[in-house]
Amino acid sequence: MPCNASSADRLMIDAARLSQSIQDFGRIGALPNGGVCRLALTDTEKAGRDELVRRMQGLGLTVHIDTIGNIFGTRAGQDANAGTIMIGSHIDTVSTGGLYDGTLGVLAGLEVIAALNDAHLETRRAITVAAFTNEEGARFQPDMLGSLVFVGGMPLQDALDTLAADGTRLGTELKRIGYAGSDDGPRNIVAYFELHIEQGPVLEAETVQIGVVSGVQGISWHEITVHGRSAHAGTTPMALRSDAGLAASLIVQRAYEMTQAIGSDQLMTTGTMRLTPDLVNVVAEKAVFTVDLRNPSGAALKQADVSLLQIAEDVAAETGTRVTCRPLARFDPIIFDQRLVESVEKTAQSLGYSTRHLHSGAGHDAQMIARIAPAAMIFVPSAGGISHNIREFTSPDDLARGTTVLAQLVSGQAGLMKE
Amino acid sequence: MPCNASSADRLMIDAARLSQSIQDFGRIGALPNGGVCRLALTDTEKAGRDELVRRMQGLGLTVHIDTIGNIFGTRAGQDANAGTIMIGSHIDTVSTGGLYDGTLGVLAGLEVIAALNDAHLETRRAITVAAFTNEEGARFQPDMLGSLVFVGGMPLQDALDTLAADGTRLGTELKRIGYAGSDDGPRNIVAYFELHIEQGPVLEAETVQIGVVSGVQGISWHEITVHGRSAHAGTTPMALRSDAGLAASLIVQRAYEMTQAIGSDQLMTTGTMRLTPDLVNVVAEKAVFTVDLRNPSGAALKQADVSLLQIAEDVAAETGTRVTCRPLARFDPIIFDQRLVESVEKTAQSLGYSTRHLHSGAGHDAQMIARIAPAAMIFVPSAGGISHNIREFTSPDDLARGTTVLAQLVSGQAGLMKE
Repeated sequence: MPCNASSADRLMIDAARLSQSIQDFGRIGALPNGGVCRLALTDTEKAGRDELVRRMQGLGLTVHIDTIGNIFGTRAGQDANAGTIMIGSHIDTVSTGGLYDGTLGVLAGLEVIAALNDAHLETRRAITVAAFTNEEGARFQPDMLGSLVFVGGMPLQDALDTLAADGTRLGTELKRIGYAGSDDGPRNIVAYFELHIEQGPVLEAETVQIGVVSGVQGISWHEITVHGRSAHAGTTPMALRSDAGLAASLIVQRAYEMTQAIGSDQLMTTGTMRLTPDLVNVVAEKAVFTVDLRNPSGAALKQADVSLLQIAEDVAAETGTRVTCRPLARFDPIIFDQRLVESVEKTAQSLGYSTRHLHSGAGHDAQMIARIAPAAMIFVPSAGGISHNIREFTSPDDLARGTTVLAQLVSGQAGLMKE
Repeated sequence: MPCNASSADRLMIDAARLSQSIQDFGRIGALPNGGVCRLALTDTEKAGRDELVRRMQGLGLTVHIDTIGNIFGTRAGQDANAGTIMIGSHIDTVSTGGLYDGTLGVLAGLEVIAALNDAHLETRRAITVAAFTNEEGARFQPDMLGSLVFVGGMPLQDALDTLAADGTRLGTELKRIGYAGSDDGPRNIVAYFELHIEQGPVLEAETVQIGVVSGVQGISWHEITVHGRSAHAGTTPMALRSDAGLAASLIVQRAYEMTQAIGSDQLMTTGTMRLTPDLVNVVAEKAVFTVDLRNPSGAALKQADVSLLQIAEDVAAETGTRVTCRPLARFDPIIFDQRLVESVEKTAQSLGYSTRHLHSGAGHDAQMIARIAPAAMIFVPSAGGISHNIREFTSPDDLARGTTVLAQLVSGQAGLMKE
């Protein structure tokens, strides 16, 4: 059949079908006011899994479920020894989640498959669409559990023995919903791509269409306790106080100044603070607060950690208080495969889309797969930067652009066999 | 009887009897681990009132109860038209109070009377020992209610209709315990003295024996609410945030700097702070905190109020947040009678005691009486600055020194009639 040069190079996705696919999938676990609740391994999420498997089979994919419940749908390539190109993400959500976080990456993968099917195109390598178990960590901790087990980062038995807050065992739930598979999942992954909403406001604010994700930033959580001395707010001179509340605010202020000095890559958040005894006219004897530090550079994050603890000690000395710091979480940054990241950028630009490099602020399955295979991510804008929220929204045009980039990357990597 | 010059000038108090008097009185409402609970107009406080009246009568005082339950015990002077010198404070306590706050001032007054009786000395003016109703404000608000009504600062009916948190009516309780008097109380007050523990750490820290109280500082309480925008701590760049938690800490830090710039008379306390949603990895959408400002200068306090609100607005503008400020309480400062304050200082120094001028950080009945008569206060050290606490403690030597100063002042003002 005759075709022009540009369409010959481009696998054409169906934007309307993609949008409909996402809307339809959003009915599974739909909340009354919008958004969805598909907590991992619940009956609702099982319904989502069943629908996903049904769709995979409808597209002719061979479905495998591995021992931690990850779902893999594979379209065979012409060369059985050339490995597979994997497109992955997750379909579980937080308890008041949106339609796009995770789900987009999986359903965009199915759209790529559908587009290949429509065009009767074969590829040299296989293509696998993957949905990983318990990415959100909303029901079972840690998050990204399915992909972590898949790459060998957590023993299977430990994962199965994980308990939810209500005492439910992960392995028991997995069996109950019928997704305790026996497979290992595909092993020869040549490249992994994950299309995801940004979950932040940068792309929208800069009116950029495609985010080229350089990596996932490192995370360091600290809980800081300031020990002061309770005192009468009216009778205790400032110079004789040991004010835990004041010290806490001074630490936050200086940590913020440090953050500004490091530059825009450094994030710092104090989301919790509690004073004791919590009375208007009593100097606080104790303050407990958290500092969430993030940076795409491991060295910079380590330096921010050190500086924060130094700031806390300095403020304690100046205010006559004492501080104790407890690390709550620490994840080193991930740098995605440079060649793949470059190909994301070039592909998007060749399609005429505006691009921007950024680091993922949140964790994603891609960072686990990056341990065993070249991985990269594509971000599309999140309206208002809102995520983990029923108001999560990405426009159909943005969904289509991201999926088009994904389709070109995957078909390119898989090796399109022209007719 | 022969006596030397110095003892002739000095009314000798009995330090051991004073200490014993305070210890004995502390048994009324004693708590298991020390301290006392004599909340105003309870059965326990009635027991304290009964004991006080019994002691007053034992010392030959004429007892009057006024319409708000203030107790006045008067020792007549030789000149019935020369007015009275009043020694006052209160015997009610907070729920976990100490033995000294308030009670010292009343029992020291009785010790002065006892010393005059022992020495068979008469005075030209009458001397009245007063115990005012509901000074603490722990059961009924406002605090200093009895002295406020006594000076005409609150209509009697309003005071009687005051409800406790449990709905109990003050007037009903007063009648129930038998202290709804019909008297007006003494009207021709020539001078008012109140001996009180400092309730702060200054005297102890500076090893000063007698605090010469210049006045009661003004108090201004603000509740500040910062309205920001909840956001993902990992995906929202610092520049695009509207971080209520950060803004709150910046306001506290700058309010503290302002306080330091004003000088040591200015106090500032943030004793409460709450962030919403109070999660480690979510930028706070709301912060609510209080700022307690105190200054002995009304003009300085007013300026601090204005500066605080300006700081809040500035920080809001810089952080992209919005602030609302709500005044919670506002009391203008009181300056005590200059002549009486000087006489407190001179008397203490003539006794060989070290002195220091200071402002009262807490409210006292003296500030109400100051509206209708010359008033002054004497402070003695509080161990560790601790008050409103079962660990409240002032050494017997300090109690004796303060009471000795009180005795000289009162006998001097009342006009000792030498035999």
